[in-house]
Amino acid sequence: MALVEVSVIPLGTETPSVSKYVAQAVEVLRREENIRYELTAMGTIIEGELERLLTLVRQMHQAVFDAGATRVVTTIKIDDRRDKNSGINSKIESLKRASGL
Amino acid sequence: MALVEVSVIPLGTETPSVSKYVAQAVEVLRREENIRYELTAMGTIIEGELERLLTLVRQMHQAVFDAGATRVVTTIKIDDRRDKNSGINSKIESLKRASGL
Amino acid sequence: MALVEVSVIPLGTETPSVSKYVAQAVEVLRREENIRYELTAMGTIIEGELERLLTLVRQMHQAVFDAGATRVVTTIKIDDRRDKNSGINSKIESLKRASGL
Amino acid sequence: MALVEVSVIPLGTETPSVSKYVAQAVEVLRREENIRYELTAMGTIIEGELERLLTLVRQMHQAVFDAGATRVVTTIKIDDRRDKNSGINSKIESLKRASGL
Repeated sequence: MALVEVSVIPLGTETPSVSKYVAQAVEVLRREENIRYELTAMGTIIEGELERLLTLVRQMHQAVFDAGATRVVTTIKIDDRRDKNSGINSKIESLKRASGL
Repeated sequence: MALVEVSVIPLGTETPSVSKYVAQAVEVLRREENIRYELTAMGTIIEGELERLLTLVRQMHQAVFDAGATRVVTTIKIDDRRDKNSGINSKIESLKRASGL
Repeated sequence: MALVEVSVIPLGTETPSVSKYVAQAVEVLRREENIRYELTAMGTIIEGELERLLTLVRQMHQAVFDAGATRVVTTIKIDDRRDKNSGINSKIESLKRASGL
Repeated sequence: MALVEVSVIPLGTETPSVSKYVAQAVEVLRREENIRYELTAMGTIIEGELERLLTLVRQMHQAVFDAGATRVVTTIKIDDRRDKNSGINSKIESLKRASGL
């Protein structure tokens, strides 16, 4: 299982407020069944099998074009470990434990 | 006011579990007064005046060396808008509103 | 046509020098026919159709595990515009023109 | 000595072509003395002492606002190793050597 963080940015939009474009990307995840994700102020974190995650990311990227953008910059970070299971919750818990919280 | 997302990665550590290094970076924020930040599974989001944020980021990066790393890759994303105030909470709220949530 | 920049980082390797892992990821591109890419000091830039690029990126990411890593952090940036063709060369040329070079 | 890769993206511009904004950021480096940098199709790579690099990055980010943007997303990746000197050229050479090129 991998974690992916994705952030989509449309360029050349009428205003610098781009929530309506980002909302269309997030809609891809809302329609998907059995997927665990989390919205943050800087992107969306998704947990799952890597190939499926990359398919979802491509659909999210496409959704921003479908919402009217003509150029989209999408940033993706994959954190993938094969020596143990590490999901959204367990990563934050490891960090809190290491921080003595 | 800007938002910064920061993620620190030590290379060449004895195991692929790096929480103890990341915890030292987060400790920089715990010791700082009057700073708003949020831990996610993929990094840390901090809110504040840009120059201050970049100073904190540099201290977080240094903290990973102080914890014993000899090479550190740090990724930073700045989201800075000057036409209106936009903090950690207001960004997520805008997105939820645009998503009809 | 899209541009993708990809960077792979293995964690928990015996030394902070990770060229041998990165070389295995680049090998995926060397074996691929009719693909245009460029190595930089911070990653690899690839030009092509987006779905094909994401498949290559997944193979590059996998190649780092095949080289012995147990955890890999891969960062991907997609720059995709549909209003005009924009490849590796044309982007740098636009920038140079705008810079008066 | 560290390497930094920086990429600036203005949001809400009149067209998706943003070279004129990026050119103003690069102008910061052109005016700077004794700095080694390289333009790529996806960003700018700069080599030097970390504190100086972060000051330059902040000036580049500001230059995009000075060129008229009201929101700027800037992505920065720092690769910093203290066990040996590693500049723009030496990193690419290590990779080529590991690739048998």
